[in-house]
Amino acid sequence: MTQKTITAALVIIGDEILSGRTKDENLNFLAVGLGEIGVNLKEVRVVIDGEEEIIEAVNALRKKYDYVFTSGGVGPTHDDITSAAIAKAFDDEYLVNEEAKTILENYYGHGNLNEARLKMAFMPSKAILIQNEINAASGFKIENVFVLAGIPKIFRIMFEGTKTELQGGTKTKMQEIKITLTESVIAKDFANLQQKYPQIIMGSYPSEATTSLVFRGTDYEILEKSVNEMILILKNLQSDCVLAVVKS
Amino acid sequence: MTQKTITAALVIIGDEILSGRTKDENLNFLAVGLGEIGVNLKEVRVVIDGEEEIIEAVNALRKKYDYVFTSGGVGPTHDDITSAAIAKAFDDEYLVNEEAKTILENYYGHGNLNEARLKMAFMPSKAILIQNEINAASGFKIENVFVLAGIPKIFRIMFEGTKTELQGGTKTKMQEIKITLTESVIAKDFANLQQKYPQIIMGSYPSEATTSLVFRGTDYEILEKSVNEMILILKNLQSDCVLAVVKS
Repeated sequence: MTQKTITAALVIIGDEILSGRTKDENLNFLAVGLGEIGVNLKEVRVVIDGEEEIIEAVNALRKKYDYVFTSGGVGPTHDDITSAAIAKAFDDEYLVNEEAKTILENYYGHGNLNEARLKMAFMPSKAILIQNEINAASGFKIENVFVLAGIPKIFRIMFEGTKTELQGGTKTKMQEIKITLTESVIAKDFANLQQKYPQIIMGSYPSEATTSLVFRGTDYEILEKSVNEMILILKNLQSDCVLAVVKS
Repeated sequence: MTQKTITAALVIIGDEILSGRTKDENLNFLAVGLGEIGVNLKEVRVVIDGEEEIIEAVNALRKKYDYVFTSGGVGPTHDDITSAAIAKAFDDEYLVNEEAKTILENYYGHGNLNEARLKMAFMPSKAILIQNEINAASGFKIENVFVLAGIPKIFRIMFEGTKTELQGGTKTKMQEIKITLTESVIAKDFANLQQKYPQIIMGSYPSEATTSLVFRGTDYEILEKSVNEMILILKNLQSDCVLAVVKS
């Protein structure tokens, strides 16, 4: 089986997240959604609503990963500066996108396109629209960067709309062993198994009274094999320590 | 009044967040907690459990902000690599911290300190312990970097323990006007007000049927003044459009 690794990053333009006023909901949605098509979310940055900060994050990440998504700052008010910042990041002109303008005109009615509404049609010249059914504000794509709205409901619709355009990679599958033993009891065997199967990412996550051993990988046979080996090791340590095995 | 700006960043070491398996809970807690002592959270990065990624993020942020917090990767298993990575980031030795070792010995009982448990005592040589009452695993501080556990409950206890050590700045206060008008109706007046009071950060956040105009600042008189002016402007636009005014 040929493995194909596709990676992505997310930039959350997020004064309201950083001030603690709002809890982000887009990170987890994107992580799960990308996972479903075999794209690995590798990095997330939350930056203030500042031109310099947005440009720096987007330019650092778009060179490093296959796709970059941004969330927030595409509305009609003065604090919505994402589109202008993205134009600068690409050294592109920032001007009215005629298609976006038509959508806004149809939505608000001809003659009702005030300055603030028209602002939502301003984009980099190379922008390709990403529409949404809820309102007339469009997101856009420029090269490998997808500029989406911050409102979770609209972020989701826009992401679903772009999903078919994304080139998916080999899906990472996950298996999880939930045990009663604490981490320090299984750590040595777990580390040995990780060494034996370096192609599987093995992580351990403790909670109140249980520990979750998580196995992730794109080679499903080895994934299955490594999990089964760990289950055997665990049962040898303590026969009733395995509470559950979850496979995604 | 003398204004003092203190800034912070957070690095979430987060394979489990990036894969979508877990939703982060530490960002919002830290944002709120720092806000209470007048420290502004300015940037967050979520990186994979990779040495290079942790080093790069921590080194970029610790030069840029007054404080850096990290979340996750300080346990006994092989995937817990934060402490070792931080030692490398500071070009410091990575060795047993005797104080941390004593805490672990007292917790597990003498003679029960296996390799995995002892691993939790390994830290940069310049580390200053951050203890927690729940388990024997310590976090630590090195220069302006605070290395905390990822489990929300322990992250919180460790943060509360360090809070008194942080130098707070002028607290940012927030006021919020909730209105029935859509953003594009108030955008122009709102932008004009922002221009008039550049020391106040004004943001607009739409939801289903309402819009929240958020004012944040450290000059409380100007904050109050700008909010009151906006309320007047709004009432002139439509007398019953203001649903609520929230002051923090």
